[in-house]
Amino acid sequence: MTKDAEAPLGVFDSGLGGLTVVRALRQVLPNEDIVYLGDSARVPYGTKGADTVIKYAASCARHLLGQRVKAIVIACNTVSAVAIESMRIDLDLPVLGVIEPGARAAVGASKTGRIGVLATPGTIFSQAYTRAVTTLSTRTEVFGQAAPLLVPLAEEGWTDGDVPRLAARRYLEPLARAGVDVIVLGCTHYPLFFSVIEEEAKKMMGDHVRIVDSASTVAAETRDYFQTRDLLAAPRPRAGKIRLFVTDVPRSFSDMARRFLGDEDVPEAEQVDL
Amino acid sequence: MTKDAEAPLGVFDSGLGGLTVVRALRQVLPNEDIVYLGDSARVPYGTKGADTVIKYAASCARHLLGQRVKAIVIACNTVSAVAIESMRIDLDLPVLGVIEPGARAAVGASKTGRIGVLATPGTIFSQAYTRAVTTLSTRTEVFGQAAPLLVPLAEEGWTDGDVPRLAARRYLEPLARAGVDVIVLGCTHYPLFFSVIEEEAKKMMGDHVRIVDSASTVAAETRDYFQTRDLLAAPRPRAGKIRLFVTDVPRSFSDMARRFLGDEDVPEAEQVDL
Repeated sequence: MTKDAEAPLGVFDSGLGGLTVVRALRQVLPNEDIVYLGDSARVPYGTKGADTVIKYAASCARHLLGQRVKAIVIACNTVSAVAIESMRIDLDLPVLGVIEPGARAAVGASKTGRIGVLATPGTIFSQAYTRAVTTLSTRTEVFGQAAPLLVPLAEEGWTDGDVPRLAARRYLEPLARAGVDVIVLGCTHYPLFFSVIEEEAKKMMGDHVRIVDSASTVAAETRDYFQTRDLLAAPRPRAGKIRLFVTDVPRSFSDMARRFLGDEDVPEAEQVDL
Repeated sequence: MTKDAEAPLGVFDSGLGGLTVVRALRQVLPNEDIVYLGDSARVPYGTKGADTVIKYAASCARHLLGQRVKAIVIACNTVSAVAIESMRIDLDLPVLGVIEPGARAAVGASKTGRIGVLATPGTIFSQAYTRAVTTLSTRTEVFGQAAPLLVPLAEEGWTDGDVPRLAARRYLEPLARAGVDVIVLGCTHYPLFFSVIEEEAKKMMGDHVRIVDSASTVAAETRDYFQTRDLLAAPRPRAGKIRLFVTDVPRSFSDMARRFLGDEDVPEAEQVDL
């Protein structure tokens, strides 16, 4: 295991959406250097078979190991659902995924035990959140709602105004009918709609409804994990550096990266062949 | 060449969107048997390199040849843009694509020589319509507008109401500013938005604006081609049959197929491994 607390933290995703996790990590771990790998040439993973996803995840992990990271955060819901166990077995370093922290936060926040999940059709179909939540608490029930429009809306930068609001209402309606009191945003792209979803959910379900964002929750768990294991980078005069690797440079790369990272100052991406 | 006019017509696409072309073909060629192949396991093609698309197209064509088709219609814009020449060279039967007929219809319909194209980011980036239009007429100018939200909206069945209308307006605005008088729907999914796009375009640009739908135009050209070459199937008491092959059965297959085909009566899909 790389025991060096000053080593960078590795984050990977099937594409650029995982930069929302980097954004959340920077908020709670400002001193950490972060190496991000987006497998943009092979995005999306959600439509691919489990064996393929495990193979892709292993090749991403190898690249991050080559960067001597001290731990890996899987920002991708599909990889977290399908490949985290095999990665934990194969890799001699901590591996954190987005699903377990999101599920834990949801179970903690729910009073009624009725939890809604908004995610891509692939994640909903995989039942990953349902399994993670019911592992934690048998008194809970999970209601999954696929929200496929939110990904292209986020990639287009159409995250405010009537269209995202109408889309949010459409996806929230079945969850409102199911009487959930917590809604998990189970896709890397969805934190961009946090305010819209929270506002519409409160209108529809009342002020008590809680939105759990899987990017922030994995960031908080990563901080706790580092704290208890002496893996936190020391405070330093400058903020932690970000290094960005992608397997393909999408045409609208810098716009998308800026949007997901929530920062004007996006580092140059280095293209790698996995 | 399969000279048999009674042989089926082969149609292929990277996914199910090409069923809008089948719908258009059935309207003008009701007697034809149609074999459709949707390469749903490898969708989308638009993000893949030209060599890969040519290879995939060749494997789709081989499957259709095995069904003894008399001609092939490429319903996919990416394949039409990238692989039609190599297919025409390699295959000893007629190959029709969506781009040339759409471009011809657009040039024929435009009075000002200013033509707008709505398509996926991949098709716009490939400049395929620009090349096809300027090959036909040097006095025309093409204005491409990527409309990425329309594909997930179509796949979700959200083809009417405020959201598709707002999306259409957003995508039409730059074309209105450019002063186009014809708009080509350059993606297999977009015919589902024909009325919405036409209504909004008329409000924004005036009643003279014409919408050219590449599904209907390739269907009309196919009919003309068959007529002049004695390849039309003879009139028969029953309508032509449809046989549906896919490389992967998407979860919402029957809903999507019904929507794109515009018919309640969708045949069972047969899964093939290419």
